[in-house]
Amino acid sequence: MATMKDVAALANVGVGTVSRVLNDSGAVKESTRRKVQAAMKELNYIPNAYARGLKMNKTYTVALIIPTIWHPFFSEFAYYVERNLSEHKFKMLLCNSDVSNEKELEYIQMVQENKVDGIIGITYSDLDNFVSSHLPFVTIDRHFKEETVCVTSDNFQAGQLAVEKLVEKGCRKLGYIGTHSRFPSETTKRRAGFVEQAERMNIPYAIYDEMDPVLDLLAGIKTFFEKHPDVDGVFAHTDFIALDILEVLDAMERHVPEEIQIIGCDGIKMEAGRRQIVSTIRQPVDLMAQAAVKKIIELIDGEAVKEKITLPVTYIEGPTTKNNCVK
Amino acid sequence: MATMKDVAALANVGVGTVSRVLNDSGAVKESTRRKVQAAMKELNYIPNAYARGLKMNKTYTVALIIPTIWHPFFSEFAYYVERNLSEHKFKMLLCNSDVSNEKELEYIQMVQENKVDGIIGITYSDLDNFVSSHLPFVTIDRHFKEETVCVTSDNFQAGQLAVEKLVEKGCRKLGYIGTHSRFPSETTKRRAGFVEQAERMNIPYAIYDEMDPVLDLLAGIKTFFEKHPDVDGVFAHTDFIALDILEVLDAMERHVPEEIQIIGCDGIKMEAGRRQIVSTIRQPVDLMAQAAVKKIIELIDGEAVKEKITLPVTYIEGPTTKNNCVK
Repeated sequence: MATMKDVAALANVGVGTVSRVLNDSGAVKESTRRKVQAAMKELNYIPNAYARGLKMNKTYTVALIIPTIWHPFFSEFAYYVERNLSEHKFKMLLCNSDVSNEKELEYIQMVQENKVDGIIGITYSDLDNFVSSHLPFVTIDRHFKEETVCVTSDNFQAGQLAVEKLVEKGCRKLGYIGTHSRFPSETTKRRAGFVEQAERMNIPYAIYDEMDPVLDLLAGIKTFFEKHPDVDGVFAHTDFIALDILEVLDAMERHVPEEIQIIGCDGIKMEAGRRQIVSTIRQPVDLMAQAAVKKIIELIDGEAVKEKITLPVTYIEGPTTKNNCVK
Repeated sequence: MATMKDVAALANVGVGTVSRVLNDSGAVKESTRRKVQAAMKELNYIPNAYARGLKMNKTYTVALIIPTIWHPFFSEFAYYVERNLSEHKFKMLLCNSDVSNEKELEYIQMVQENKVDGIIGITYSDLDNFVSSHLPFVTIDRHFKEETVCVTSDNFQAGQLAVEKLVEKGCRKLGYIGTHSRFPSETTKRRAGFVEQAERMNIPYAIYDEMDPVLDLLAGIKTFFEKHPDVDGVFAHTDFIALDILEVLDAMERHVPEEIQIIGCDGIKMEAGRRQIVSTIRQPVDLMAQAAVKKIIELIDGEAVKEKITLPVTYIEGPTTKNNCVK
């Protein structure tokens, strides 16, 4: 049986273009559309029956799985996911996994039983044996053995940008402070981008990076600063870790941003109308939610291309860096 | 046909006790239970057929309607609502109303069409004509024309407690700064409790209270402090308003807590493991969520007593008051 790839090859276009024609989404030139449709006809192409079949039984609900909604990054993401789903007449089931996979598996089963149409998941538990490429599942940041749609921000660029900004603001020795999950995630690229840029700019640096769950992060941070008293610029893996660093430095009577500058990552705000809590590399949460919703609906409605969507990050000036460049 | 009230009267107990016997929930003495059951038998009492009927068609989903999940009070509440629902095998649909009633009405219709079993709502729009006493609906803080189950914290006590604490910490003239919705809500009692306690303690006070939406709250707060330069203790209607006050006072170069002390209300934290952001009167969000879930399931499963559940608040010391009592 002909596949989308065969259609794409015959029409001499990308698989993405075939998908856009199939789903009637995105801009496709009329001539290209005709070429693709001719190729489908010639190959007697039938869109994935399983996926198309689901369309008939749609529940118009998508489950959002996150570790906890009680966290400004996840609540902002959930806000935009619900808003985008709502524009497509979908409802959103919310699941706080509390980083256990029991509830996550329950929702995967609900999809298999056609009780929910699909899942958008920010997951940190052992799901590799359950996430099949047939499951309408959009993952944020994380990779699975099976090919899935992954939406992420440019975490490598985040690390690079943080180094650039810290150096621009006069820092002479940098620190990277972070934690990471035991599951493969895009977010580990924050450190890689940091290291690459520091080496390219020939700036000395030190690293403190532990695997979650960390027993006493504050103690670890304190030891890091005792060991590296000359670090005057820090890139924190998340804004919350930046807050932890602030707390440690405050207790050590070291002044931020006068003596040490800190840039966090995520760009969390307590609510829409408030400011970021630290100087930060902001993930485009609204665009990530929009992309995740677009993709999950494509997966539910038909054949979507299994791809990774990487969205750019931006630097937001806050209270933990010097406002004037002192290069 | 006999009603719960008839049963309660014959058994010489409260309607709440009859409900507890019916729903097999809460502690009821064995002798009381027998008395109630005898009264039911004597009166040939049949539990509300409509409500009992719903039980057969349960979808095991409850919708939570809030203005926006991107707000630490609502996200904490949503976290606990989902957790409690999950313990009862219910799923939670999340709806950000964005303070428009269009989406709220959609969910009310879904309940009427048996697509959702019930609603827990923190609503600020015009719903009076839609919230009927037959609808499985638990409202937080707000009142409707029709009798509904309302879960709230002791807002009057919040105002009283704030005054007590500010006076205990040496304040000599108090200010109340707040906003209120045009719909009747329990939260207006914060101001009433403040006023009552200030008068009882014979402490002078000034009030700044505007109806939402406020165009320029920061300017209003600034004018208030210019008009009342001697105010040295403030009770803010919410923690977020306390943050706004901090911003205004910072720009006026007035020091908190040295010159002016501030107590907020709500007790928001950015995530479970963090501290409150200001000194505050904390609402018991976890218990409110628990009570709301218990009540909505009672409403879905049978006849629940239409009552208001008021839960006590507590004072949490934070960075915006003096730590030592200077009475």
